[in-house]
Amino acid sequence: MTSIANSVRCETFSFREVARDGAARAGELQLTHGTVQTPIFMPVGTVGTVKAMRPDELASQVEAQIILGNTYHLYLRPGLDVVRAHGGLHKMMGWDRPILTDSGGYQVFSLKDLRKIREEGVEFQDHISGSYHLFTPEKVIEIQETLGSDIMMAFDECPPAGADEHYMRESMARTTRWEKRCLEARTRTDCALFGIGQGGTSEKLRREHLEELGPLPFEGMAIGGLSVGEETQAMYDTVEFTTPMMPDEKPKYLMGVGKPEDLVECIARGIDMFDCVIPTRNARNGQCFTSRGVVVVRNAVHKEDLRPLDPDCDCYTCRNFTRAYLRHLLKSGEMLGPQLCTLHNLRYFLTLVGQAREAIVEGRFEAFRKRFHELQAEGGSR
Amino acid sequence: MTSIANSVRCETFSFREVARDGAARAGELQLTHGTVQTPIFMPVGTVGTVKAMRPDELASQVEAQIILGNTYHLYLRPGLDVVRAHGGLHKMMGWDRPILTDSGGYQVFSLKDLRKIREEGVEFQDHISGSYHLFTPEKVIEIQETLGSDIMMAFDECPPAGADEHYMRESMARTTRWEKRCLEARTRTDCALFGIGQGGTSEKLRREHLEELGPLPFEGMAIGGLSVGEETQAMYDTVEFTTPMMPDEKPKYLMGVGKPEDLVECIARGIDMFDCVIPTRNARNGQCFTSRGVVVVRNAVHKEDLRPLDPDCDCYTCRNFTRAYLRHLLKSGEMLGPQLCTLHNLRYFLTLVGQAREAIVEGRFEAFRKRFHELQAEGGSR
Ligand SMILES: [Zn+2]
Ligand SMILES: [Zn+2]
Repeated sequence: MTSIANSVRCETFSFREVARDGAARAGELQLTHGTVQTPIFMPVGTVGTVKAMRPDELASQVEAQIILGNTYHLYLRPGLDVVRAHGGLHKMMGWDRPILTDSGGYQVFSLKDLRKIREEGVEFQDHISGSYHLFTPEKVIEIQETLGSDIMMAFDECPPAGADEHYMRESMARTTRWEKRCLEARTRTDCALFGIGQGGTSEKLRREHLEELGPLPFEGMAIGGLSVGEETQAMYDTVEFTTPMMPDEKPKYLMGVGKPEDLVECIARGIDMFDCVIPTRNARNGQCFTSRGVVVVRNAVHKEDLRPLDPDCDCYTCRNFTRAYLRHLLKSGEMLGPQLCTLHNLRYFLTLVGQAREAIVEGRFEAFRKRFHELQAEGGSR
Repeated sequence: MTSIANSVRCETFSFREVARDGAARAGELQLTHGTVQTPIFMPVGTVGTVKAMRPDELASQVEAQIILGNTYHLYLRPGLDVVRAHGGLHKMMGWDRPILTDSGGYQVFSLKDLRKIREEGVEFQDHISGSYHLFTPEKVIEIQETLGSDIMMAFDECPPAGADEHYMRESMARTTRWEKRCLEARTRTDCALFGIGQGGTSEKLRREHLEELGPLPFEGMAIGGLSVGEETQAMYDTVEFTTPMMPDEKPKYLMGVGKPEDLVECIARGIDMFDCVIPTRNARNGQCFTSRGVVVVRNAVHKEDLRPLDPDCDCYTCRNFTRAYLRHLLKSGEMLGPQLCTLHNLRYFLTLVGQAREAIVEGRFEAFRKRFHELQAEGGSR
């Protein structure tokens, strides 16, 4: 079934499905640094910090269970020597819960004019100093093992949007070879490794790729190459026909998604794990996600608005501050504005996936989904 | 003794000296929103936020007892309507401990080309929209009462550095008339009002001004016009000859000072209260104050420095993060860098004044002062 000679597997890893409601499912993921209840959203901590958040806020107030770190960024800054000196990424950043790291592939491929793809790997010039680097499957596993990730991601190519079928097939075949090399390269028994399936929005290509990757000894499987500019409905459709092709005994991770409605709709289609910069990035511009829809807190309508961002939210921001005050902070360029909005957005995302999980466990996911959309339609700024 | 017709006084205010050691003293200040142990340092919260700090961090982790707000900035942004809608500055910013506000005079006078001094007050164009405004003594009291400050400051002119004696005397006489008008204008019995003495570094002028202001029914007295560019020793000398001219039964507040050594040296000369932007502003550039002196955390020497900022500090930053990680955050432009450095700097300042107080109460202030300077001389980056 597999042609992988290396017998190293993650010994601390396990996953079990605890409930299913339609295609939606609730699970429990055991990782080296702790347990994760799925479906889960992972805040993004690009260079070893979830922007504007103290790790203790993230743990006790956001109740994040796992965060994501970016291999490309951490490799450049602070660099592996510094991470190694600390004994790994967890210790460096003061976060003792699980961390998933991407492979760096996505960042490297987006350096359009600065990279060259070869069978061996990708040669690129970084966006900071312009120095030359070579990322190979072996190299990105070595980096992620140095970071000490609970979950490492295999090295894949994320093909450009609109690539033709010929290019897609070549790229997917190379990605398969790269991902097998990742499996061969692993040495740590406390770092899980997830594979990534590509194939754009084509059901045929998705099936072909997952038929190759599915049997390989990855601990989990991800859908790559979505949320790269396609229509939302095309993304939902792709998720819908792809999740049944993925091994049910492994977690199913949709990379780079999304907004609250995307989370609910993709949980409905069988996704267990999400990550996205939207809640953190948008918070810094004062775009807040709430149970009643988006609140653009800088808008003049909130000038003397004494309401909290979200009447249903239990976060520090919503318990203590008005929209008027948040607006003032953002307009004055005060750091506390991004801090408080980030805290709220992340807490909202984590609350949302927690509520989805509860609904699945209690067999009322469809009612939850319907109610979610009704409340969203009310509009946050009304 | 006083020619003030208005009989309104602050009924919630009291101050008592609890210990004295040389010229240094420890006191207890009762204000509407709580008790303050002196000597005290007040973090600056310019527009209704101490930059990068959550109010709950400020209370429970920095252990700030009182903070300062800027009348000029709050008047412009978010404006009094917004503050009034919240029921005052405390409620708007989620801070339930005491607040002192300045009178706006200092900011207005620093708008060199945009302001015109008249007997009535100061006309100026603000630095944001360029609109015209008039600050009079009556106006700044009205603003501060709307803010709901525990301690309001009287409207004074801070004369430019190097002003001649003729100008100084004219300015001081006008300031005296303005400060009396502040006393006449007050209406709230839960807002204390402090007077401000001017006179530069001249013992004669300081005495003249305090002989006029000392008998007036202010709840406290401040030294204005220092830390505006004079030599450090001249500042210390001025404080030394000025504090004995101030009423002992009232708190003595040195405005806009300073660095840790300035705090210790001016406590030694009888000062009870301080405020300064240095710990917060410098933190954002990675200049950290520690028991061993300044640590410039961005410096290359800290690249793989696994030590905390300050081995003697109990703050979240020092308990959890290395200098190498803080350096990485600052160099990457991550908000968490300023957040963690601000937390440390403020905690250090509050720890320092707390230790000074303890030493005064225990009659060993001179030993404390000597030990402070010895440790500072070690150098933080060694
Ligand atoms: Zn909230
Ligand atoms: Zn500290």
